[in-house]
Amino acid sequence: MNTKRQQHTPAAPTAADYLIASRQCELMNLQYFLQMGKVVQSISNLVHGLQRERGASNLYLGSGGQKYADERGAMVGESDRLVSEFEQALAEVHEALTAHPVSSHLLNHIASALHGLEQLPALRARVDAQALSVAEATEAYSSLIHAFITVVFEAADTAVDPSIAGLLVAMVHLMNGKEFCGQERAVGSAGFSSGAFDSALSKRMMHLVEAQERCFEVFVSFADEDSRKLWHSLRAHDREAEIERLRQHGCSVGRYKTLDPELADRWFALMSERMDELKKVEDAVEGSFHTRCVERFAEARNSLAHQETLIATLDRQEPPAQPMLVLCDSGEDARAGESWDSAGVGQQFGRSIFDLVQEQTRRLQQMTDELQSAKEALEDRKTQEKAVLLLMDHRKISNDEAHRVLRKLAMDQGKKLTEVARALVSMADVLK
Amino acid sequence: MNTKRQQHTPAAPTAADYLIASRQCELMNLQYFLQMGKVVQSISNLVHGLQRERGASNLYLGSGGQKYADERGAMVGESDRLVSEFEQALAEVHEALTAHPVSSHLLNHIASALHGLEQLPALRARVDAQALSVAEATEAYSSLIHAFITVVFEAADTAVDPSIAGLLVAMVHLMNGKEFCGQERAVGSAGFSSGAFDSALSKRMMHLVEAQERCFEVFVSFADEDSRKLWHSLRAHDREAEIERLRQHGCSVGRYKTLDPELADRWFALMSERMDELKKVEDAVEGSFHTRCVERFAEARNSLAHQETLIATLDRQEPPAQPMLVLCDSGEDARAGESWDSAGVGQQFGRSIFDLVQEQTRRLQQMTDELQSAKEALEDRKTQEKAVLLLMDHRKISNDEAHRVLRKLAMDQGKKLTEVARALVSMADVLK
Repeated sequence: MNTKRQQHTPAAPTAADYLIASRQCELMNLQYFLQMGKVVQSISNLVHGLQRERGASNLYLGSGGQKYADERGAMVGESDRLVSEFEQALAEVHEALTAHPVSSHLLNHIASALHGLEQLPALRARVDAQALSVAEATEAYSSLIHAFITVVFEAADTAVDPSIAGLLVAMVHLMNGKEFCGQERAVGSAGFSSGAFDSALSKRMMHLVEAQERCFEVFVSFADEDSRKLWHSLRAHDREAEIERLRQHGCSVGRYKTLDPELADRWFALMSERMDELKKVEDAVEGSFHTRCVERFAEARNSLAHQETLIATLDRQEPPAQPMLVLCDSGEDARAGESWDSAGVGQQFGRSIFDLVQEQTRRLQQMTDELQSAKEALEDRKTQEKAVLLLMDHRKISNDEAHRVLRKLAMDQGKKLTEVARALVSMADVLK
Repeated sequence: MNTKRQQHTPAAPTAADYLIASRQCELMNLQYFLQMGKVVQSISNLVHGLQRERGASNLYLGSGGQKYADERGAMVGESDRLVSEFEQALAEVHEALTAHPVSSHLLNHIASALHGLEQLPALRARVDAQALSVAEATEAYSSLIHAFITVVFEAADTAVDPSIAGLLVAMVHLMNGKEFCGQERAVGSAGFSSGAFDSALSKRMMHLVEAQERCFEVFVSFADEDSRKLWHSLRAHDREAEIERLRQHGCSVGRYKTLDPELADRWFALMSERMDELKKVEDAVEGSFHTRCVERFAEARNSLAHQETLIATLDRQEPPAQPMLVLCDSGEDARAGESWDSAGVGQQFGRSIFDLVQEQTRRLQQMTDELQSAKEALEDRKTQEKAVLLLMDHRKISNDEAHRVLRKLAMDQGKKLTEVARALVSMADVLK
């Protein structure tokens, strides 16, 4: 038996023990993602609720408290329900998150989101009292929403299974795109209701449109087939063309002539519809994500059980004269081990455990390779945010202006935005 | 009090809870590294013991079993002692490694190393019986040693603290360099004792010399001051010059004239001395690594205690009229929170927790940034190994030949080896 060795205590863990531990680690990671999936879904719903609350609050404030009080009240009530669901989902995973902590970054971002949530009653009170402007209210809600989306980005970064990571990357970029859409809705509302789009407002709108497109590009490249189809039918809808016409109208005509204030209502309705449709695509991705988690978890659990049985069988057998056939998981080939002379007790067993270890090495390596593109997508976003912060700091410009500078750099140099951002960040270290 | 919110169960985790959980996650990670440090040290010692055993076994085999039997026996006994120490260290960390698994890759590589260890008695029996060649014995020992060094590489990849990661990267590259040195010792012995260095042997030696230098370069760039000094005095020693003279002599003269067989003994003695001196530098790095782990752990534990006290104090106080001064860890500034109106209950508390969360975000971001270079060094090695495997597979050439092709590519294109390797790997995906 290959678990006994002379001169060593029998309690020493064996290769087989660690092989199983490696598989168990994968299983535990998948279980963690099944649970995190509920938190992510609750965040998706809560973000949508807060976006609706933001919109209604802005209309309420914009009308000087004269209109939309009931609608706003309904949104606030709905958001509270969604906050409870989020807190419930978080409480269920709290033990797993903190006892076997995966990422201090993730925990800190959750702290950040919870802190924002703790400020929500005070924010609502200020809206009630009309004690802040539409811009200030938008900023406060956007900040809270951003904190929640950041939690999902961080969760995506902790994924080790490539298919799961990919779907999370798709979903969070869609969420982020929808948020930029919500901010665009607010900017458009401000422009149309005031009757004019000044230079700053136009630039902001342009930035938000471009930011959405970049998010949606990443979504498309990582999404599953069904969600992509849903997305394409959204894009093919007449609504998109009408929104584009309104954008053009606002930014071009809106500089010279006072705009028809009724366009404000039309704009708000269209953009709200768009966001609701985007939410449906988000739900589709979340559904695929959940299905994939369940599939992978079942696969991993079966693999583990199969391996444990196989290893137990190996332990019980007498050393055979011939090398044994190793029956592995269907689809996973047992590769031939190193070639040893056929003499030597324990070498056939050695080859079998060896094959299993080699197979695991190959599997994990392949998974890591496949994970690369998802990791890069997340890294690109972080690099871009860093580059933007550098530009803001260095040139004392706004977030939108910094994004514009970055985009221009990319266009002028004929390079991709992420390349330019990466170069900027690395140059900053050198020029510090 | 900011932990109470209307309509929500008081049991819901708060921002403060997650802030503390984030710090606890850091602490648990550092504790895990303190324990892993013992495993890493035992691996360092075991690898050195196996290298000595390999050397003695080769001399024994090379002399047809006529000489070095006693020396080999002593090495085998010493290695067994070191195996016990390794198993002991591993048993102590087994619980932590498997209950809160950090990396399925790491666990699988440990399985691989343990499997190799289980084959060691059989290998020794074959050496006893002189049932394998010097080359075969070298290959078998090298394979086992490689498995252990891979465990340390994988452990380095799980580090999140940049200073700890850096020292682990330094140490494992030194270990790897010492292993290439051991393989060079074997190649040189073969050449000098046979009296000639044919083309294949010369190429192999050249490859091993170059591979060592690359490892030592990375070591130097990540090592601490004291270890670097020790390293420089090793390089300044006369031994280095004599080894270089022997290399030149063997590879040039050794093609045309039969070499003096006594050079074989001189070569072996010099290279063994060199490896012992390298081990001392390795021990110095390990010492610095341990010291750093202890320091960071103490820092993190104090930070956590401080934060818990601070947060408890915040919870107990009445809302003050003025914003509170936040006393944070010395050296970590509390940054001003977003600007809110001074009206609004709970906002001052909000700002304090907000400050702590912001500070943690900044700290973690900075740590991740500083971690980049260590991560890149580990990634570079993996990319190079991938590129080598690709070339071996594509052109049906040996490991050494593939390395040579890669080096030539780098020279011809005037680029760094890692750049060329990265380009090759990405092209392979495209051309598949």
